Amino acid sequence: MVLYLVGLGLGDEKDITVKGLEVVKASDKVYLEFYTSLLGGSTSVERMEAFYGKKMILADREMVESGCEQMLEESRTQTISFLVVGDPFGATTHTDLVMRAKELKIPYQVIHNASIMNAIGCTGLQLYTFGQTISMVFFTETSKPDSWYDRVKLNRAAGLHTLVLLDIKVKEQTMENLLRGRPIYEPPRFMTVNQCVQQLLEIEELRGEGAYTKDTLCVGLSRVGQDTQQIISGRLEELLNVDFGAPLHSFIIAGDMHFHEQEFFDTFRVNSETKYLPVVASDDNDDN
Amino acid sequence: MVLYLVGLGLGDEKDITVKGLEVVKASDKVYLEFYTSLLGGSTSVERMEAFYGKKMILADREMVESGCEQMLEESRTQTISFLVVGDPFGATTHTDLVMRAKELKIPYQVIHNASIMNAIGCTGLQLYTFGQTISMVFFTETSKPDSWYDRVKLNRAAGLHTLVLLDIKVKEQTMENLLRGRPIYEPPRFMTVNQCVQQLLEIEELRGEGAYTKDTLCVGLSRVGQDTQQIISGRLEELLNVDFGAPLHSFIIAGDMHFHEQEFFDTFRVNSETKYLPVVASDDNDDN
Repeated sequence: MVLYLVGLGLGDEKDITVKGLEVVKASDKVYLEFYTSLLGGSTSVERMEAFYGKKMILADREMVESGCEQMLEESRTQTISFLVVGDPFGATTHTDLVMRAKELKIPYQVIHNASIMNAIGCTGLQLYTFGQTISMVFFTETSKPDSWYDRVKLNRAAGLHTLVLLDIKVKEQTMENLLRGRPIYEPPRFMTVNQCVQQLLEIEELRGEGAYTKDTLCVGLSRVGQDTQQIISGRLEELLNVDFGAPLHSFIIAGDMHFHEQEFFDTFRVNSETKYLPVVASDDNDDN
Repeated sequence: MVLYLVGLGLGDEKDITVKGLEVVKASDKVYLEFYTSLLGGSTSVERMEAFYGKKMILADREMVESGCEQMLEESRTQTISFLVVGDPFGATTHTDLVMRAKELKIPYQVIHNASIMNAIGCTGLQLYTFGQTISMVFFTETSKPDSWYDRVKLNRAAGLHTLVLLDIKVKEQTMENLLRGRPIYEPPRFMTVNQCVQQLLEIEELRGEGAYTKDTLCVGLSRVGQDTQQIISGRLEELLNVDFGAPLHSFIIAGDMHFHEQEFFDTFRVNSETKYLPVVASDDNDDN
C-alpha cells in the first residue's frame, strides 16, 4: 500500500498538520520515531495516542538503524505511518529509510512540518544569512571532536550566522553493558546551552584562531515552537550560566547582523544594561 | 488581545497544523498574506475559506510593507490571525511585523510550519551540508544583479550545496502605471528552473571564475510538498530545457556529495543514460 512519513513539528500533539492527522487516523499501523528528537513539553505518548485515536509502536534506534525491514515489508500490503518529530528529513537515518523504500519500490509520501532548521527564524536572524549548520556532541575525557570549528570560522569570515544543533543521547549503553550484551540503557541526556558555550570556549582556547571570542554575540534557544519557548541573546560568555530550563536547547553564533536583525536581537538581551557591541550592517542586499 | 502568525506550509489548505486551524477558527479576523508566496496547486482562497469556516482579508504588498498598522491596532482588542504560506519567518517583511508588535507591546504567537528551507531535505541532500541560501531575481536588459555569484563560489569551495530561491513578482506595476499612479497590476510571474539555469550560465560566462560549470550537478524542484511535486537532477545545462510545470520552482546547486546523497540524487536523474560525474565523498563526518 503506502508508507507515510509524517512530520510532527516542534510542539505538542496538535502541531501535526490536518493532512498528517488524517493520514494517521487512516493508517493500519503507526510508528513513532523516538530517538533522534523528543516530543515537546507536556506531550506524552499517551496524549498523542488519545488525540490520534491510535496505538503507536515506538521505533527506537536499533529498529531505525537496522533499516526498519519489518515496517517496510508491512507497507507493501498496509497503510503505515512513520511519525517523526520536526520534519521527516531532519535526520540522515530517515533519508536512508526513504532510499530503502525507493529501492523496494514501496510507494511513500512525505507530510512536511516545521523543523528547528527553519523555526530559528523566530530569533529575527534571517534564514538566508545562515551558513552551514554544525552539530555539537558531548565531549568526553578522551574525545573532543572539533571539526565544526573550521565551519564556524568559515561562516563567521563570510559574515554568516551558525546554527548549532546540540547533542541528544537516547537509549545509550555504557561500554560495560554494551560489551556484556546487557540491554540496560542510560537515561536520556540533552546538551544544554551552557554545556555548548563551555565547549565552544574550551575549543577556542585550544585552537586560538579567533573563529569567535567570548564577546561574540550569540543566541540561546530552548523549546522552540512550544508555549514555554525561551530566546536569550548576549555575548558568548554571558550565556554560560543562564538557565534555559527543560530540553531541547539550540544555539546560534551570530555573524554580521543587519540593522533589523540587531534590533530584534536586542529585544532578547540577557542583560539590557550590557553595552551593545558594534556590528557590521550588511550593504549587500540588492538581490535578497 | 493577540496576534497569531500562522504558517500554512507548502501544500493545500490541509497543510495548516491542527493548532493553527484551531487558532484561525477562534479568530475575530483572518488576514492572508498573498504576495511573497503562492498557495499550492488546487487551493484557492474560496477553498480555504470553506475549510476554515472564515472569510479572509487579503493582505497585499502595500498593506504588509506599510506596516499593517490597522491589523496591529485591531490586535489590541481582538484575536487576529495573519496567515503566511510556508513558515511565518520565511520573509523579512514578516519579521518586521513581529518587531512592530513587540514595539507596540501587542502579544503575539507564532505557529510554525514547513518552509522550502527545510522541505528541500526531500532531495536527499542533507540540510547541514547546505551553505548560504541565495535569491535569484529576474534579469532585465539593464539590471543583472549577481552578488549571489560570490556566495555560490564560497559554498562550492567549501563543498556545500546552495539553495536558490527563485523570484516571484506579484502585484507589480509597469513603470508607466506607477508614474501615472494607476492601480493597474501585471499578472503574477514566477521564475522557472529554466530561467534560473539560463541566468546562472549567463553570469558564469561573464564572470568566468568557475564557481560552477555547465556540468555542475544540480537539482530542480517544483511544487515541493504538493501532490504533483517534481524533483529532477542532472548537470546544470541538462536542466535548461526540462519542463517543471506549474509554479513554484526552486533550485539547488550541489556541492560535494556524500555517498548516500549521491545515491539519492541518482534516483532523480533527468536522463539515466547520463554518465555520472565523479564526486568527492566527504570523510568529515565525525561530529555530524
